[in-house]
Amino acid sequence: MPKANGIVALVTDYGLQDAYVGLLKGALLSVNPQARLVDLTHEVPPQDVREGSRILAAALPYFPAGTVFGAVVDPGVGTERAIVGVETDRHVLLAPDNGLLGFLERRARRIVRIAQSKYFLKPLSQTFHGRDIFAPVAGHLSRGADLARFGPALKRLTVLEDAAPSVAADGALRGEVVSIDRFGNLITNIPADLLPDARRVRITVGRRVVRSLSRSYADVRKGNLLALVGSTGHLEISVNQGSARSAAGIRRGDRVLVTRARG
Amino acid sequence: MPKANGIVALVTDYGLQDAYVGLLKGALLSVNPQARLVDLTHEVPPQDVREGSRILAAALPYFPAGTVFGAVVDPGVGTERAIVGVETDRHVLLAPDNGLLGFLERRARRIVRIAQSKYFLKPLSQTFHGRDIFAPVAGHLSRGADLARFGPALKRLTVLEDAAPSVAADGALRGEVVSIDRFGNLITNIPADLLPDARRVRITVGRRVVRSLSRSYADVRKGNLLALVGSTGHLEISVNQGSARSAAGIRRGDRVLVTRARG
Amino acid sequence: MPKANGIVALVTDYGLQDAYVGLLKGALLSVNPQARLVDLTHEVPPQDVREGSRILAAALPYFPAGTVFGAVVDPGVGTERAIVGVETDRHVLLAPDNGLLGFLERRARRIVRIAQSKYFLKPLSQTFHGRDIFAPVAGHLSRGADLARFGPALKRLTVLEDAAPSVAADGALRGEVVSIDRFGNLITNIPADLLPDARRVRITVGRRVVRSLSRSYADVRKGNLLALVGSTGHLEISVNQGSARSAAGIRRGDRVLVTRARG
Repeated sequence: MPKANGIVALVTDYGLQDAYVGLLKGALLSVNPQARLVDLTHEVPPQDVREGSRILAAALPYFPAGTVFGAVVDPGVGTERAIVGVETDRHVLLAPDNGLLGFLERRARRIVRIAQSKYFLKPLSQTFHGRDIFAPVAGHLSRGADLARFGPALKRLTVLEDAAPSVAADGALRGEVVSIDRFGNLITNIPADLLPDARRVRITVGRRVVRSLSRSYADVRKGNLLALVGSTGHLEISVNQGSARSAAGIRRGDRVLVTRARG
Repeated sequence: MPKANGIVALVTDYGLQDAYVGLLKGALLSVNPQARLVDLTHEVPPQDVREGSRILAAALPYFPAGTVFGAVVDPGVGTERAIVGVETDRHVLLAPDNGLLGFLERRARRIVRIAQSKYFLKPLSQTFHGRDIFAPVAGHLSRGADLARFGPALKRLTVLEDAAPSVAADGALRGEVVSIDRFGNLITNIPADLLPDARRVRITVGRRVVRSLSRSYADVRKGNLLALVGSTGHLEISVNQGSARSAAGIRRGDRVLVTRARG
Repeated sequence: MPKANGIVALVTDYGLQDAYVGLLKGALLSVNPQARLVDLTHEVPPQDVREGSRILAAALPYFPAGTVFGAVVDPGVGTERAIVGVETDRHVLLAPDNGLLGFLERRARRIVRIAQSKYFLKPLSQTFHGRDIFAPVAGHLSRGADLARFGPALKRLTVLEDAAPSVAADGALRGEVVSIDRFGNLITNIPADLLPDARRVRITVGRRVVRSLSRSYADVRKGNLLALVGSTGHLEISVNQGSARSAAGIRRGDRVLVTRARG
């Protein structure tokens, strides 16, 4: 990656009710007191590696070159799972090798197993590697330390089995609601480029049907259901100034069907 | 305003459960990696422009001259509503022109419609202008860019209809609970200067009556209801070391009546 | 303490739904616009001094020398309770003298009553000393101001009555669950050095019994209950990739009994 810019972006499932994030930051600042810390989110559902990965993948393009990412969604903390550092042409990322960084496999310029224990806090806990390993290593990386210092090169990253939508012979798309945001928007795993022409679409989610693609929330009346391509480039189901979750009674994982409307 | 000081204060209704705030920050830091970001709050109730405005108005006096504010409570995102930049003698503020900044109409030295799309991210989403417009423009402003660069001057700001309390001929004040905080304090829209003498007051909220104004929580016993002038200069109803919300069974919008007690 | 490093770590019970934390930060940055602010947590349960103290004590070792801490859990705000500044050989801390800093009594090199009102905001509210006193004083301290400037020396700190576990004549340890974290881990007040040999232990919490000490979550099968020494050096009860709170139906304050298993 280019020269470290001193920014460290963090995504975890630690939540903010406890001081875990604060402790991680303290340990990081002990190595690099000049680091500038940015919270991507700490509210990844506990141990939900797939959701953490989705958030990280959507965030990377928006952060400046030279940013270090620390991603800690780590149900295997304390086991033999590896911690990896991955360098792309713009960033360097630290995460447990449990699939969080699988989306980078083709873009990775270097993959390193973080193994040099002289950089870790002592005593090393078996339940809080965020504070004891990720924080000091991210601190060093944000000061410009070379990734190679922290351990041996690896050839592969763990990749999660694909949750991509399926396309049937008749063109029907089957996807799912992968996330529901604070506003009750239903975010699907169906990318914009798979969608048929906007005026000829029929989208079924739960018992509700949407018959066109909108460009913005206000294309329908307040309180009405709509579908559009959201800010991450995927199909979303929303309610103008309301909550699609409440309106459609939908949960994460529920199916979404997109077919061409008869013409 | 004076020279930009590099601080950007943010208030949104994005919440912290998703990564929207983090994405906005990434986009801002991509323009000004040295910006120092401060969260005012991101828990404005979804699309509650009035509450966002109240928070911002209470915050301005406490931030140093040269601070840039980004305020995004934007139910009209993607419609023709304007985004405005407002300069006062101390700060510059960015917000949708939906009333969020209406309280500044008399103090504004310059109002600009943010229209120069060369500063926006491409492709420009129709659902996330916080990331695609507010963030890069705030980034430039925090580096000292002149507000005039971003679009044409405007003469007026949208001002919300006034929710001020009413004063009857007999001196009775009728206001409402505009906000309830984490501690269960009931914050009203009745400013201190309208209140009668502390010892001659009768305050009715729901079925509860408070018969004096206190100076601090501890003026009454633990668990008792009290009224005082809160930290924003408005009448608040509280319980010493407890929750007035629970004690009085009150919700936002409920009426508050202040009369002079019979001497 | 060593020279101030410009970092200010904050722990409060203000929550993030309101703008109280943001206002405190604005007031602090008005004194020191270069301060680097770190949130330890703002979700201390309202007015829970003991929990605030526990969090702070666990955090201190992980922050760099020269950090200023602002700790505001302050049920007595507006009363005659003192606000104190405490200097150790590594840090300086500000807090109400209500027991929050009692754990420092032996380590304190200097204790000062914060009394010089020329450093406070005017008008001084009686309900929000975080913004009006803690913030500007922390701002000055983070720029290197000497603690003695802010008021007279004190000899003692308020110390909370001890909630330490008891050890019976037969070696049985009686402690309690002092905190439950986001993951549902039950954190006790039993320090590691009081625990018997790992293979000869019997831990009772509610109706559940754990018969050994694990080293990491993954020492038991997914969904099973375990006990280990957690990241703060105290006994914790957890479920591998699940919630011990749900599994054991436990609340804060519930008893934990540790006995030696019969060999």
